Amino acid sequence: MAAHTPACGILTLLTDFGSVDGYVASMKGTALTISPHLRLVDITHDVPHQDLFRAALILKQVAPTFPPGTVHVVVVDPGVDTSRRPIVVESGDHYFVGPDNGVLTLAAPPPRRAWHITNRNLMLDRLSKTFHGRDIFAPTGAHLACATSPEDVGPTVHDITEIPLPQPTVEPGSVSGEVIYADQYGNLMVNISEEHLSGLTPENMTLKVSGITIEGLKGTYGDVPIGDLVFYVGSTGYLEVARREGNARHYLGAPRGAHVVLHHG
Amino acid sequence: MAAHTPACGILTLLTDFGSVDGYVASMKGTALTISPHLRLVDITHDVPHQDLFRAALILKQVAPTFPPGTVHVVVVDPGVDTSRRPIVVESGDHYFVGPDNGVLTLAAPPPRRAWHITNRNLMLDRLSKTFHGRDIFAPTGAHLACATSPEDVGPTVHDITEIPLPQPTVEPGSVSGEVIYADQYGNLMVNISEEHLSGLTPENMTLKVSGITIEGLKGTYGDVPIGDLVFYVGSTGYLEVARREGNARHYLGAPRGAHVVLHHG
Amino acid sequence: MAAHTPACGILTLLTDFGSVDGYVASMKGTALTISPHLRLVDITHDVPHQDLFRAALILKQVAPTFPPGTVHVVVVDPGVDTSRRPIVVESGDHYFVGPDNGVLTLAAPPPRRAWHITNRNLMLDRLSKTFHGRDIFAPTGAHLACATSPEDVGPTVHDITEIPLPQPTVEPGSVSGEVIYADQYGNLMVNISEEHLSGLTPENMTLKVSGITIEGLKGTYGDVPIGDLVFYVGSTGYLEVARREGNARHYLGAPRGAHVVLHHG
Repeated sequence: MAAHTPACGILTLLTDFGSVDGYVASMKGTALTISPHLRLVDITHDVPHQDLFRAALILKQVAPTFPPGTVHVVVVDPGVDTSRRPIVVESGDHYFVGPDNGVLTLAAPPPRRAWHITNRNLMLDRLSKTFHGRDIFAPTGAHLACATSPEDVGPTVHDITEIPLPQPTVEPGSVSGEVIYADQYGNLMVNISEEHLSGLTPENMTLKVSGITIEGLKGTYGDVPIGDLVFYVGSTGYLEVARREGNARHYLGAPRGAHVVLHHG
Repeated sequence: MAAHTPACGILTLLTDFGSVDGYVASMKGTALTISPHLRLVDITHDVPHQDLFRAALILKQVAPTFPPGTVHVVVVDPGVDTSRRPIVVESGDHYFVGPDNGVLTLAAPPPRRAWHITNRNLMLDRLSKTFHGRDIFAPTGAHLACATSPEDVGPTVHDITEIPLPQPTVEPGSVSGEVIYADQYGNLMVNISEEHLSGLTPENMTLKVSGITIEGLKGTYGDVPIGDLVFYVGSTGYLEVARREGNARHYLGAPRGAHVVLHHG
Repeated sequence: MAAHTPACGILTLLTDFGSVDGYVASMKGTALTISPHLRLVDITHDVPHQDLFRAALILKQVAPTFPPGTVHVVVVDPGVDTSRRPIVVESGDHYFVGPDNGVLTLAAPPPRRAWHITNRNLMLDRLSKTFHGRDIFAPTGAHLACATSPEDVGPTVHDITEIPLPQPTVEPGSVSGEVIYADQYGNLMVNISEEHLSGLTPENMTLKVSGITIEGLKGTYGDVPIGDLVFYVGSTGYLEVARREGNARHYLGAPRGAHVVLHHG
């Protein structure tokens, strides 16, 4: 493993490794051994174990806030012990490094390019079978953030695994979608985005979820009394359902995948 | 939003956003897009939801350990969706950026200056109604840490909201105060500081809390047997009550606001 | 406390302070006041309270991934209020800073040198009795990471406290050891390392733990069906016992210290 000394950029880390063991720190040490000039930033390490969709959606929300050239290393990897490929994906001036299981793709829409990581010179000299985050992904990501070209990681691939974002069904007078994320406050994100609302009248909209109908698109949760349910366009452009000063997820019992219908006009 | 490239300083982050979502990382990405040279430091993101007083007290304890010029961004913001002002406060060679709800003021005692953040050039181009941490506070803080003058954020304000630190009552032979903080070990911080103890004899002091009397000010918890209650001057200059190798908060059942009386002489 | 401005290296932090209070941030602020050029990296702050052995083992696993010259500050310190010495240990091109209670020694094998931290110029001007992490260890570590010589911290010491790693018993046909660590997934690390397996035939090995016998050393957990127990050489070179897509610790009820026997041949 060669050491680099040029200017290095930002390397983010997103895993399901939690904070009680030393796994994340071992990835950081490995990256800093390649260059102590890297800027390391944690996205989160508290993704529920092997929850690829949640990790993919967090990455989709967070990655665009980072500057061009940022390298995102993602290790949510149920298949670490199988033959799934380690890959690099380039999309929108960012690099995404991780397993080819779809976790990278929501944040890396086309046009994109991808490579199979096969260059042993970019990995630790000795590879374990159970910790590719430390042995393959962190060092490859560090090299990329220090000006290694993605062409140097291995051959181009064209058939990477995708995790689809469920698409809503648009009909006259309604859009049918589903809950795709619940944050720690119990606010629910729905796969209906502001594009679907273009030209519609906020006061005429109703949202139906878990058998309850909420009247009128609001600007924010502060527009309703404490304890009321409310829906509004959230900070990432998707509809959100909240209960003001409460927990909509608990109140509605609406898990990921729960059906949501927006009526309008 | 203009990009800065000069030398940048330290930007700390203190929120109640927790670690399971990507909110904190989105603030960091936004700041690093303004300058990748910023030094980002987490204070904590595990403040109980909307607990302004606890956040204010943590900031008061931690901020003085940082060097002059440090910018502290604080987002504990029950009023994100209302008309409370975003502000910058300058005090003691530090800058504090956050909502005008009092969360900044314990750490920023007079003499101080304050400004209402109104300069759209320092914010994200597109503002959401629910995530001012990402859209206003992180970018404004980043600009301040990269040599933008606080005069450039907006007009001076003189009427910022304060959170008062409860003051103890000093009488002949006693000082009456209250519990203001419990840390994760269950050690209780009391709003009686070492200044109140000046000239008093440690052996003559007793502390009464939850109906229990503790004899004698000690230097540290190691000065009593395992399992005993003890009070001493803690690491931030306030009286603390602990149970050696135990949890004083659970043992005493003394929540924040619980009455404490120090008798002396 | 003198300020340094030369190039500074990496300072890692490992404590049992958790993330809800401001203690870790106060250590960081203190270090950055000595030099804002330090690279701070968290190892973990979620070591169970005062669990010296677990902290020592995490440090042993993680420290070797960091580059030469790294300074590791460790504060798991049941004796903060007693007369245990603050020390610096040099081993393998790394520095380890913390209390002389053994927590540093698994990561810092001989040949090593050690010093008693007595130089007041490297500490905060005012020392508390309960927060040596902020007042002694962080600033001393920061000075070391900014090119202060370890000889400057205080006199050499030769009798530092050790935490022994339990050694397995090697007999003809078997190796007897014990569980030394369980990670958050419930994977169990055993104090039998790959060196003990040299020359043996994987298919002929069996591992007995909690009255259950597992057949055959595998390469990784993917080599057995879902739900099965498996043992393999883990990412740090020690035997690990896992349950594929399950939790071996809960399934086996095998705590730290649980007896494990490897039969072979």
